[in-house]
Parts: sequence; C-alpha cells; structure tokens
Amino acid sequence: MIKYYTDEILMTPGPTQISLDIYKSMITKAKNTDLDEDFINFYNDLRKKVFNLLNMKKGDIYIMLGEAMLGLEIAVANTVKEGDKVLIIDNGVYGDGFKDLVKMYRGIPITMGLDWRKEADPNEIDKAFEKNKDISLATLVHCDTPSGMLNNLNEISKIVKSHDSYLIVDAVSSIATTNVEFQNIDILIGGSQKALNIPAGLTIMAISEEIWEKIKKVNYQGYYMNLSLWKEMFDYNKTFPYTMNDTLIYALNTSIDKLFEEGLENVYKRHELAKRASLNALKSLNLELYPEDERYSSPSVTAFLLPQGINDKKLREITWKKYGVMIAGSWGKLEGKVARIGHMGYQASLNNLLIAYSSLSKALNELGYKNSVSEVLGSIEEVYT
Amino acid sequence: MIKYYTDEILMTPGPTQISLDIYKSMITKAKNTDLDEDFINFYNDLRKKVFNLLNMKKGDIYIMLGEAMLGLEIAVANTVKEGDKVLIIDNGVYGDGFKDLVKMYRGIPITMGLDWRKEADPNEIDKAFEKNKDISLATLVHCDTPSGMLNNLNEISKIVKSHDSYLIVDAVSSIATTNVEFQNIDILIGGSQKALNIPAGLTIMAISEEIWEKIKKVNYQGYYMNLSLWKEMFDYNKTFPYTMNDTLIYALNTSIDKLFEEGLENVYKRHELAKRASLNALKSLNLELYPEDERYSSPSVTAFLLPQGINDKKLREITWKKYGVMIAGSWGKLEGKVARIGHMGYQASLNNLLIAYSSLSKALNELGYKNSVSEVLGSIEEVYT
Amino acid sequence: MIKYYTDEILMTPGPTQISLDIYKSMITKAKNTDLDEDFINFYNDLRKKVFNLLNMKKGDIYIMLGEAMLGLEIAVANTVKEGDKVLIIDNGVYGDGFKDLVKMYRGIPITMGLDWRKEADPNEIDKAFEKNKDISLATLVHCDTPSGMLNNLNEISKIVKSHDSYLIVDAVSSIATTNVEFQNIDILIGGSQKALNIPAGLTIMAISEEIWEKIKKVNYQGYYMNLSLWKEMFDYNKTFPYTMNDTLIYALNTSIDKLFEEGLENVYKRHELAKRASLNALKSLNLELYPEDERYSSPSVTAFLLPQGINDKKLREITWKKYGVMIAGSWGKLEGKVARIGHMGYQASLNNLLIAYSSLSKALNELGYKNSVSEVLGSIEEVYT
Amino acid sequence: MIKYYTDEILMTPGPTQISLDIYKSMITKAKNTDLDEDFINFYNDLRKKVFNLLNMKKGDIYIMLGEAMLGLEIAVANTVKEGDKVLIIDNGVYGDGFKDLVKMYRGIPITMGLDWRKEADPNEIDKAFEKNKDISLATLVHCDTPSGMLNNLNEISKIVKSHDSYLIVDAVSSIATTNVEFQNIDILIGGSQKALNIPAGLTIMAISEEIWEKIKKVNYQGYYMNLSLWKEMFDYNKTFPYTMNDTLIYALNTSIDKLFEEGLENVYKRHELAKRASLNALKSLNLELYPEDERYSSPSVTAFLLPQGINDKKLREITWKKYGVMIAGSWGKLEGKVARIGHMGYQASLNNLLIAYSSLSKALNELGYKNSVSEVLGSIEEVYT
Repeated sequence: MIKYYTDEILMTPGPTQISLDIYKSMITKAKNTDLDEDFINFYNDLRKKVFNLLNMKKGDIYIMLGEAMLGLEIAVANTVKEGDKVLIIDNGVYGDGFKDLVKMYRGIPITMGLDWRKEADPNEIDKAFEKNKDISLATLVHCDTPSGMLNNLNEISKIVKSHDSYLIVDAVSSIATTNVEFQNIDILIGGSQKALNIPAGLTIMAISEEIWEKIKKVNYQGYYMNLSLWKEMFDYNKTFPYTMNDTLIYALNTSIDKLFEEGLENVYKRHELAKRASLNALKSLNLELYPEDERYSSPSVTAFLLPQGINDKKLREITWKKYGVMIAGSWGKLEGKVARIGHMGYQASLNNLLIAYSSLSKALNELGYKNSVSEVLGSIEEVYT
Repeated sequence: MIKYYTDEILMTPGPTQISLDIYKSMITKAKNTDLDEDFINFYNDLRKKVFNLLNMKKGDIYIMLGEAMLGLEIAVANTVKEGDKVLIIDNGVYGDGFKDLVKMYRGIPITMGLDWRKEADPNEIDKAFEKNKDISLATLVHCDTPSGMLNNLNEISKIVKSHDSYLIVDAVSSIATTNVEFQNIDILIGGSQKALNIPAGLTIMAISEEIWEKIKKVNYQGYYMNLSLWKEMFDYNKTFPYTMNDTLIYALNTSIDKLFEEGLENVYKRHELAKRASLNALKSLNLELYPEDERYSSPSVTAFLLPQGINDKKLREITWKKYGVMIAGSWGKLEGKVARIGHMGYQASLNNLLIAYSSLSKALNELGYKNSVSEVLGSIEEVYT
Repeated sequence: MIKYYTDEILMTPGPTQISLDIYKSMITKAKNTDLDEDFINFYNDLRKKVFNLLNMKKGDIYIMLGEAMLGLEIAVANTVKEGDKVLIIDNGVYGDGFKDLVKMYRGIPITMGLDWRKEADPNEIDKAFEKNKDISLATLVHCDTPSGMLNNLNEISKIVKSHDSYLIVDAVSSIATTNVEFQNIDILIGGSQKALNIPAGLTIMAISEEIWEKIKKVNYQGYYMNLSLWKEMFDYNKTFPYTMNDTLIYALNTSIDKLFEEGLENVYKRHELAKRASLNALKSLNLELYPEDERYSSPSVTAFLLPQGINDKKLREITWKKYGVMIAGSWGKLEGKVARIGHMGYQASLNNLLIAYSSLSKALNELGYKNSVSEVLGSIEEVYT
Repeated sequence: MIKYYTDEILMTPGPTQISLDIYKSMITKAKNTDLDEDFINFYNDLRKKVFNLLNMKKGDIYIMLGEAMLGLEIAVANTVKEGDKVLIIDNGVYGDGFKDLVKMYRGIPITMGLDWRKEADPNEIDKAFEKNKDISLATLVHCDTPSGMLNNLNEISKIVKSHDSYLIVDAVSSIATTNVEFQNIDILIGGSQKALNIPAGLTIMAISEEIWEKIKKVNYQGYYMNLSLWKEMFDYNKTFPYTMNDTLIYALNTSIDKLFEEGLENVYKRHELAKRASLNALKSLNLELYPEDERYSSPSVTAFLLPQGINDKKLREITWKKYGVMIAGSWGKLEGKVARIGHMGYQASLNNLLIAYSSLSKALNELGYKNSVSEVLGSIEEVYT
C-alpha cells in the first residue's frame, strides 16, 4: 500500500508534536542539578517566566518532576484534611475526577452533578456555597479536555473567593492556549505535554500566598508530594527535594521563550482562530459539537459526538494507519461517543487543521458517513482568510 | 499579525525539508574518516546501497564531498578533451547548461535547440548523431527542475548507445522519485539535497566500466575532481583523496535505508500520486503547466506559467511570509515566468501538497487571480481517494 | 585565565554524564504514549530487559515517571500501614532515611544504630529480628552513596527472608555497577540518573509476586504512587495511570542495550577495576577511605574523609572552576567531612579516573595538602596494567 | 576483555572530536540556501567573524562547500597559468605537495629542497627569490601537520612581499591554534575539521584585494573552483554558485562564536600550553621530536620519531583498540617513521593530553619500549601547574 503521508502527525489533545527546536534544547550537556549553581539560577529564571505567563503578581511557582497528574494530587494532598468539605465543580471527566482525589485524602467531596455539555454556571456554584457554608475549598478544571469544555475561570474564581474559599484549578490543557489569570486562585496546576509541546514529565505548580496557612494546618505527611518541603528546601536552601531533571527543564524554557517571542496575545488569537476553524469544519461535516454552546468550546481541543453507526476505534484507526493522523476518542462515560481533535500549541495552525480534518473527512466517508472533503477544507480556509 | 502556521515548510524543488530521523543520524560520534576502518566499511556498504538504488549490475559508485554541481563538472572534466564533440540534449536550463561546462574543458558542444516545453525527442537525438558522426559523448538531464521536465531516460540512453557514444546523465532531482536504470549510462550524477532530503554537500557518481578507457585517454589534470585518483586511492588503497565528511554520509545512509524500507516501488508510486495531485490542482487553479504534456511533467516538481499580471516575487513572498510555505520561481529565461512546487522525497505527500496549494491558492487570490481554495484542495484530495 | 580543560566532566555520584548515543536516542519522534500501541509494546520490551538485568525469574517491573525518591516512597507507602514495625538497616544517610518514610506512613521504624563506616552485619540483622518478632518488613540500601558503602545484599536478603519478612531494597546507585540478584527481595527501586547515565526522571520498580498480598492489605489510598493501580491499569488494560514520558524511555532503552552489548560481566568488572584504581589513588594521596574496609567500599563511588584543614567547598570549587571536574561532598552528618568521586556507568573508566584524581590531587596541593600528582596518576594506571 | 574506557577519543591531528554544542547547532531547521535571505545574511555575518579571526583589514572571505583540499587547489587553479614560476616552500609533506598542484595547472614549481625537520628559513627564501627573479607567486604551509612543523608565517610573508610576489598560505591546521595575520598574504586556506572541530566539508578562503588582478589574468576556466564566479554571483547577486550546505555553516558559526567567547588570546595560550605539555611528555618518554627545534614545533600537533623497533601500526592499534585513543602515524616519506598526537581545538586540554599520553606510554611499554607512565603523566601535569 502506498502511504499518503511522509510524516505522522499527532492531533490528539496531548501529548503533542515536539518541534525541532525543543529537541535541540534537550541536547544540552548534563548538569548536576543538585550541586550546580548555574542550574539553580536557570531554574529560578524559568520560574519567573512561568510566573509572568500566568499573570501572577505574587505567589510561588514550582516546577516538579512528574506528570501533571502528580500536580493534581499534590494540590489535594496538601490542602485537604480528614472531614474537609470540598466543592467539586464537576462538569467533565477530570472535573468530576477531583472527587476521587478528595476522597483518597479523606475529604468530603460535595459534587454538583453538572451537565457535562454545559460550562459550569457561576450561579450554581454560588448556590452550592450557600447551601454548604462549611466548604473551604473548591476544585475546577479550566479546560476539561475529554469533553472539549472551557470553563469561565475568571467568573468562577471570583465567586469562589467571595465565599472565602480556596480554589484549586487544573489548567493543564488551557495554559498557553488562552489567557490564564492567577488572581483568585490558590493552586493552579500545569503540565508539559499539552500546549507547551514538550514531553510529559514536568508539573507546574502555582501557589498563592494565602494557601500556605491551610497547607500548614493540613500538614500533609509525605515526601515526594510535599509542598512545604519544596518551600523549605528550595526557597530557603536552594536545594531540590530530589534530583531534578535538566533536559525537560531546558525544553520547557525554550517552549516558553517561544511563546513570549510570538507574543502571548498572538498565541491566544492563534488558538481562537484554530477553534473557529475547527468548529466551522464540524458544521461542514454536519457533526455535533459536544459542548452545547460554541462559546465555551475549548480553544485547545474540539470534542464532537460520533455520528450514528460510526465506530470510534475504526475511525481513529483509519486516520492513523492510512493517513498518518492521530486523533483521539474520549474517556470515561464519553468513551465511544465522543472523538476529539487537538489544536493546542504547535497543533493550532491552519496547516495542521487541514491535515486533521482531511483525514477525518475521508475516514468518515470510508465508514459510510458521506461528506465533501473539499467543503470541509474550504470551511477551515474560510476562517483563515 | 497572527501567524497562520506554527512551522515553516520548504516546498521548493530542493533543498528540501530534513526529517527528524535524518537529523538524528547526524548525531553520531565523529570518526577519523582517514584512519578508521569501520568508517571505510560503512562507506563501502553505502556505496552498495546506492548501487542497488540505481539498478546497477556493474560499474562503480563514489560518494564525494561537494554539492552536486561538482559532480556535473567532474563528469565533463574527466571525459572531455580539447576538440571533443559533445551532443547537448538541451531542453531545459540545466540541459542547456552542459554546453558551458563542455566549453570550459575545450570540448565542442553540439547543441540541438530543443523546445523546453517538450521532452527531448529520441528521434531528434538519433538524427543529431547521424549528422555528427564524430560525436563521442552526449549529456542529458533526466529531470530538468527549472522547467519541471522529465526526459525519457531509457529511450534516449538506448539511442545514444546505438551510436556508440558515451552518455552523461544528471539525475540529481530524479533519483528516488522515479526508477533510474543505469544501463546504457556512463556517468550518472546525483545529489543529496533533493529527493534524498539531506543537506547539500554530497555528490553521488555512478561510473560505467566502459568509460574508464575514455577517462584514461582524457587524462584530466586536477586533484579534487579527478576520477582516476578516486579509483586508485579508494579502490586500491582504501584511502579517500581528502578527508571525508562523516555526518552527511550517516544522513545519506539513513535516507537510503528509509527508501528501501518503504519499498522503491512504493516510493515511485507515491511520487506519481503527488504529480497527479499537483497537476489536478493546477487545473483547478486554471494554471498552465509549463511542460506541454503531462506525460513528461516530472514526478518530483511541477512547473507552471505564472498568470498574466502575477508577480513572481510577490507571490512567493506571500506564501512564505504569510503562510510559511516556500515555493520557488525559476531560473534563466524562465525567471519571472515560471513558478514551481516541489514534491520530491519527504514533500511528496498528501499533507504537504494540501499545505502548498492552500498557500498558493490564497496568495493568488490576494493578488487578484481569483480561484476557489476549497476546489483546489478538493482536486488534490480527489487523486488520493 | 586559561582554562585547562575544553569540556567539563561530572564525576559526582549522580547525576552523571550523558553520552552522545543517549542524547541521540531522545531525538525520536514523539508518540502518544496513551494511545499508541507501538509505544506500549516498546515499553513492555523494556520492562523485560530490566527484568533480565535484575536476574529476575518472576515478579513485575514498572518504570514510572518521577525521580527515584518517588520509588522509595512508593515502596513504603504501599507496604506499610499504621503500626507496622519496620526494620531499618541504617548504616548510612539513605539507609537511615527510610525511618522517616516509615514514620510518614505511620509505621514504627525499628532502627539499629549501625556504624556508618561498616557494612550492615547480617548477624546483627538476625538478632534484630529475634528481638522483634513482629517485624514484617525491612528496608535496606544496597549502595549508600553518601558514605560510599556497598552492603551485602545477598546475605542480608537471605537473613530477612529466613524471618519471613518482606524486604525493600534501594538499589538506585548499585544497579548496573554490580550484580543485583532480585531473589529474596520484594521491592527493589532503581533510578535513571546514576549508573544508567540518563537524565533523572524515571523510577524503576521491581515487585515480587509475594508482596502483592501485603500491598492489598495495606490498601494505600493515593493515585500517583499507587502500585495496585499500575497493575490494574497497565497489566490488565495496557493503559498508563498517567501520560508516560517517551524520551526518557528511549534513553533508558539505549542505556540498557549498551549494558548488554558490553556484557554484564564486563560492566561489573569495569566497575570493580574503577573501584580498585580509586582506592589506590586514595592511598597514594594518603587519604582515609570512609568505609572501614575496602571490601565493602562501593564499586560505584569512593567516599573519603577530608584531611584536617581542607575545606570541602573550596576543594570542590577548585576542581570545578579551575579544572572542570565536578566532584561531590556528602550529606547529613557527613557534610563537610566526606568528599566523593563517582565511578558509575560512563564514569567508570581509566580516563575519567585520571581526570578526576588529577584535579583532586592538584586542588589538595593548592590548599596545602601536599601530594605528588604523578604518583597519584601512576597509582591509577597501576591497576589498569 | 574489559574495556578500559567508556568513550573513544580522537587525538589525531584532524578530523577531531565534535562537541555537543556543535552537534546541537546542526539540529537546525533546514533552510533553502538559494532563496532564503535569512540564510544569506547569516552566511554574511559568519564571513565577518572569520574576517576578524584572521585579523583582516581588507579582502574577502568565502566559505565553500568541499574539503580543505578543494581550497588548496582553488588557490593554485585561479592564480597559476601556464609557465608561471611558483616558489614552493617545501619543508614538509603538504609544503612539498604544492608542487604537484602547480604542475597540474602547468606552472613551473621552483622547489627548494628544504630540510623537513627545520622551519623554512626566511633567508633561504630570500635567496630563492634573488636567484629566480621571475617568480610571481610562492606557496607556504603554515603548519605542516605530517611533520608537526609551524613555519614563521610573519617573517616569511614579509620576505615574499618584499619581492613583489603573491603568497598562498595553507593555514588549515593553524587557524584557531595560533595567531594568523592575513597581512602580506594573498590567498589563505582554512578547513573545518581541524582546530575548528566541526565535520570536514567546508573550505575557508581569504582573498586579498591585490590578487584579483592576477586571478583575472589567469582567467581560470572551470565552474566549481572558480573564484571570480563567487565574487560575481555572491558579492554582486547574493546567490551561491551552487546550493550551499546549511548544517555545516551553523556548526562553523558555533565553533567561531566559542573561540571569541573564550577569547582568542586564551585560545592561543591554551594551545601553547598543550604544546609544552606534549613536548614535556616526549622528553619523559625519551622520544625524539621530529622538528629539530621545539621553537617551531606546532601548537596544534606533536610529531615524534618512532623508537627503533616500534611498529607504527601496532602501536596505534593498541592505543585505539585497547585504550580507545586514536593517534596518527604520518604520510609520504614519514610514514612508518613518525607518529603524531593532535592537540588542536577541543583536544588542547590537560585532560585530553593525559589520556593520549597515558595510552601512548602503556602501548610503548607493551611493545617493549620501557618508560614510566606516572612520570609521563607527571611531566604533563608539571606544565599545567
């Protein structure tokens, strides 16, 4: 069989393609990250860059060694103690998943039973606080990738703060795709393999000044996930709690330098364009967007309902094996029902969307769901003109 | 301004994109190429692979350090002596250019004044030999990139041989895009930066057994371009005439391994598909192919006439600066009249053609030459379905 | 100032130099580690290689994303429940450190107060078990790097097993420097940045069949460090609990392939030679080895007492800033008293030892501790002749 | 057999080790070197850096695609016409070799029959000019690597100029090891694989303003080696005569940036130290330096006579196969009599000399030539203290 492509391309909402300059940055002579001051300084400079990326005015950044899931657990482990009530803003797979983490640390998750196809309604959150006066912590997923949902971070964080509650935000797949304001947030978690387009393995933690009091009270016992230990060891003694990786740190640095070089505003506009093109393509394909309203469809990923009779696995197998384009299904209760195309970071370009929807359009045709590939591609081009 | 792309792409007919595995192959510990037997063996193995790529049954392969232009001159310098009549099969910029090389070495070029928009006619070549009984050498460009022309190598080489003449063939941009039969050829030249997709800097020379007699007679005086010296030093003493580069040799090896892994038949079919898609796109754009007949339009590059009023430089500036796609103009008398899109090696894929023609279509629209981008993209897709 | 070197070299006992082929292995096109079967298969093949490296006959290997410290905590977190008595074989900084981990998980550490300059005495361990019949778990550090101590793993593991106790072994800096027999061990932890010479970030966990029963009983609540989750998700569903990193996995694979290519016996002999040369150099320098007996000085690192009046930091600053060689001090109560030279993996070569001791010898001279550099270097050469 | 090393090291006088940052620089996205203005500008900036490296006040730099041998031939081909008398300053393999190039281009080489163990005597050169009033061109090799000879470039160039003659200088293995003053030189040739420590493949040509008149007169017919063509095409039209390589250009740029970063004075001092250490080691080994006087022994390579009964090939096989250190024999009439250790660029460091002489010392011992390795190493250290 003739391959129609000469290079495979990942259009999954993470992990994403790694560009040549990122690989290049990893080809840097190893340092002893425990003992080399130059590395400590480099790491500190990178913290400041992340600080700026998140529009922080105060608070701390730590970049830790582990996949972003580690960061989510760290946030909960260090802030939830037995019996703490935690409001779970649960309009998605990951949003809902916070309840399990809270339970693991013996907190009491207060779930909301939100509709996954709708953004989390600030009013509902307000009411939930009213009903549960003793909630002292809420969890929110900014972009819930499995459903392609972008929640209204600014509105929600204001509501949460108005109830004197702490707020944990999973921004793993929103960072670097849309403006993320750290104001009114207490712990924000980012990862490396999403829109930052570097390998998985780094967790970004942004910590407010205020939450340290709570962290102290909770007094989490554990080493690798201990936030207080980081503060004590790194901030006061310039020592990492464990041997830090250097190659990923170099990669992250290059990734963030590129964002600032492009200009954050341009980066966010590029993602907005990608979203609009992606939504236009869905219309042309007559596919139903999973989120009910385009307004809160994520700038980093588009989730859509699979048409009647289209098998998720078969569809993805065709795009991958025949056309070299990997797209994603979904997780949990969305598995088999929802498919997704990522447009985060490197993916958010006209070219990559053309390639992704070209393969999707043809694969659907091959499975009997008829559509016009030229119209689909035209609908993407329309947005970019 | 928002960039519509996240990665620039070269769609010029050489130099071409370099893929990650090629870069990777260059990250190999340096060897002393003068003294290290392992390197000599590696180089010899690579010669055999090139031998197979060219369907050779006998003859020699040398891979030299210099851009392919070096190889063209080596071919002439070593086979033309003062007063030698050389038939110049001149239906293109490079085809015609051989006459200058022949003059430099005091040969007498017998030009044919062929039409650049037509393939070289074997009958005309036959007649030229009939008219000039003392021609002992002919030069041919297999694929003349500036005009996107693919000459009929097999027919022409048979005719040349039937007149007992030697034949030099520039296959720089045809190798690895279509089957190249070394039979009936005496010196064939290939380069590294075309369909082999590695950096410029290597010249591939395939030499027939028969031509050595002529080489001996001509007795070219010179060092760097001396074929006899290569035979003497490398074949008999396993020593290069100068310090060989290793990184490019590793790159070439990886490139050729990939060809065999894909299967040469598949590689050629992939280029044929790319050609057909490219021609379909031209039709959709209502652009005129430069070669008069599609039959001899090259599988590695498509050359077309610029529409009335479209400025070559402006067109290319838009595709490059706005859309990140570099396409080419042409050279010599075609400059300003012809533009070209490469589809050689890595470029010969559905994805790359979509990207190239997307940018071309929009740039033309922006310059007032109206066309439908969705139809153009659809015309490419059509071929790949 | 003229630099005496053209390349810096890390001779610290981890993190270590990374060689060119390791960097090269990381330049591999990113895969979606969640969805790509090829990656899952690659990972599984790597697990088998590690299985063989540890002479395992049964049990499981998991390679996790996090520094080796993560692995130590995982071992304790999953096997210690409130009130469990755990024997801490505490003849070193890390050996002793296990007691803190045990406390964090509300176990009761039974410390032994062992002499850090002596290997852990199997008889003492036997007695400790006799005294504390309810101990069900013991912890041991195979090579305690801060003191350059190699414990007798085989003897100790037999004793522990004879008391029907589980055994956790930190083999982070012994793996790939000396034969490690998994027999009689329940959880063994390895890391990536020591003798495997790749960046920090991977934790190797070897798990016995028997310990799963205990793990089930302990029923650790937590996600990122949950062993049962790995078994469930990866073994039964071929899904990682979080997005796995690929570049480090490729690096580890290359590292282990190189070990088998060299031959494990040769690798271990090379480390034994490096140890002997290092000890010979110490004698020539009239420096006191920290371990009381050379027999249990580690093949991966040599720890020695700083001579009277020699300031640790000054010494290391000279070797690093003037000669480009980074050596290490030590940790905890050894800080300022003990210095160390690593000879693990890539470092364990005649050349690297010459360079390390050349810089040490001169730096000591410059600080007033007189010695003959030529004799020191000669003492190393002696061993290699 | 246990390998005593974990990494092979090239201590031959070219090609040399390539450091990680050089490899890294080659991992740069391919550019179309024909069409991309950014590349043209980059190349021009690099020309200026080389201009500064050679202390040029006027004249041109061209960086060409081919091994340095190409540059030597270009120099002769463009400046020698039939019957031209050329003074060959012939105190070495390459010095003498110029006569063959001159003959190839039908010039008349005036050889001097100089002693290869002595630097070229300016007085002798003066006399040669007196005897041959019609000499209009002289050739000189600054550092003749096969004999480890450094000629007195400044004195000689003044003498040559005082006779109104042009001067061609092969500085291939002196550039970046000692100060090279372009004053009084007409064509100077450098290469990439010597002290610049990048792969072979680039030729540096420095051309005086004055020589262009001669070049015009000679009117060399040929394409690839035509200097006038470079001037015309590149200087006036910003077009390379052939597709330029980019990866090597990036490597050269990084290499030269590193020189300036270290400081040229420091670079030259570092080479002077390396020379002194190397000569000290020879004394300790009781080996005879090939050049009669240390004064003109090269800072980039040390050539010595093999002791009675020591077989060149056996010696080098031991250092390479047993100790991983490649040293060189010599060429031409020195083959089998002289061996050489390079200390150019990256090699010129204490560490690399220790490793090189350690292997040499032991290999000589193994072949029956007794010596004390510790004294040899001590003699190197002596110089660096």
